[in-house]
Amino acid sequence: MTIYLVGIDGGGTSCRAAVAGPDGRILARGQSGPANILSDPDTALENIAGATRVAFNEAGLDPDGIASARAVLGVAGHNVGKAVHHVKQRLPFAEADIESDGLIALQGALGDKDGIVAILGTGTIYISRHREKVTYTGGWGFTVGDLGSGARIGHALLQESLLAYDGIHDVSPLISSVLTEFNNDPRELVEFARQAKPGAFGRYAPRVFEFGERGDAVAARLLKDAAISVDEALDLLVARGTKKICLLGGLGPFYPSWIASRHQELLAKPEGDALTGAVALALARFGRRQEAIA
Amino acid sequence: MTIYLVGIDGGGTSCRAAVAGPDGRILARGQSGPANILSDPDTALENIAGATRVAFNEAGLDPDGIASARAVLGVAGHNVGKAVHHVKQRLPFAEADIESDGLIALQGALGDKDGIVAILGTGTIYISRHREKVTYTGGWGFTVGDLGSGARIGHALLQESLLAYDGIHDVSPLISSVLTEFNNDPRELVEFARQAKPGAFGRYAPRVFEFGERGDAVAARLLKDAAISVDEALDLLVARGTKKICLLGGLGPFYPSWIASRHQELLAKPEGDALTGAVALALARFGRRQEAIA
Repeated sequence: MTIYLVGIDGGGTSCRAAVAGPDGRILARGQSGPANILSDPDTALENIAGATRVAFNEAGLDPDGIASARAVLGVAGHNVGKAVHHVKQRLPFAEADIESDGLIALQGALGDKDGIVAILGTGTIYISRHREKVTYTGGWGFTVGDLGSGARIGHALLQESLLAYDGIHDVSPLISSVLTEFNNDPRELVEFARQAKPGAFGRYAPRVFEFGERGDAVAARLLKDAAISVDEALDLLVARGTKKICLLGGLGPFYPSWIASRHQELLAKPEGDALTGAVALALARFGRRQEAIA
Repeated sequence: MTIYLVGIDGGGTSCRAAVAGPDGRILARGQSGPANILSDPDTALENIAGATRVAFNEAGLDPDGIASARAVLGVAGHNVGKAVHHVKQRLPFAEADIESDGLIALQGALGDKDGIVAILGTGTIYISRHREKVTYTGGWGFTVGDLGSGARIGHALLQESLLAYDGIHDVSPLISSVLTEFNNDPRELVEFARQAKPGAFGRYAPRVFEFGERGDAVAARLLKDAAISVDEALDLLVARGTKKICLLGGLGPFYPSWIASRHQELLAKPEGDALTGAVALALARFGRRQEAIA
């Protein structure tokens, strides 16, 4: 009997799975709905199983193979003991490790090499590996953390729009576009912000980069501030000796021209995505044991 | 029959009242519980009447005089039409005007003169009078406004503490005091911040000033940033020709040494408090008509 390896990348909006042969070569991928093991573990379990079935089906494999498969899952909020335990007991696999989404992203981007992964999305977190030691930096969430994230950039944009409305700071085309959106009524803007979750702020971030690239002065100022916070985190990690940086997440492709040139020089293309990383970890952890079984 | 003048300063934590004779001279003051006409108009009405009764009692006046009194009330959130209407119909006075807490503070601090009042408390708002025109600047609340406020200073302190915990920014005695308070566990700090209302953040602000005055480097940096936002608002208002600045609110006494010297030179002691301002407005508005009645 072939024992398959499964990689899972479980996120708040979707769950992706990859099935690989015993050599770690990916045979097919599958996708399903959200898999947030903290806020909704039962739906997460359903979608983890669902995405895996899609992948097995895509690969033309008998789904009975899922029960003997070995898996590594990367999930947000993995370090909250109780939820992990609940999910781990109910997974459809013979054996599985639950890791952070950051770790599988690191593995996917860097393989077994040393380096830094900056995940720049709605939030920000930095994961670095230096001589086998993996360190997490940042990632404390929107309220008092995640500097440089899409949510913080969007928040700064709305704050800047109010300062411009009051005449304290300058207006720019970017600011005008925001004020127009709120019918030039600061109370509408404030009400939106009071209700907004990080994702709602974050949806403004691509617009800030778009205007920034066209030379909008306010956009450029907001992005320089955001980039400074990214550079400060990278300085800390680079000082430890890591000389390779991958920028991931939705804002990863936007950031290179804004960060300091000392970091631009260290940028590298990620080798693979998070799902590739999860499969690679499954191979490393369960591959040898599997040979023993075979 | 003497027609008395009443001034009311209604706030979220308490309601203060002053009763004055027809000449505007304050006879006595009284205090009662919260008077937030937006969130709880009926309790506000009770406490407005209550504080007025205490003042009449203190002055040795017959409380029947309340029904013929003329009043000016300064309240937070006065510009929300419906709540004002509801309260105005149910006040115990013969006639009353409801104004913003900012306007009575301005009147109290400056009398009839031109100038700027910066109310620096849990939030921040600037009110200026120039050639009889009163302008409000800022005051948009904690979420995307109130720069330089106690809530924003406290928020910045917690954010700075996380950056120091991660090793991205420097630790200082101030930062150590915060990290110790949260048992050096960033998750405790983040959880506190997620639940915190502006007032809970604001309670850290006096500590930042205290450490800043003793030369704590992080405190000084946070206060310089906060003072820049206050200076930027003052620059706008001073440019219009107003040459007198009163700093009010809980942080008013802390700020003078941190703002720019160009503004330090324009600082003036407030002539009176908000309650004095409310009585002065009542005299100006109802004094003449009262003479006609008498």
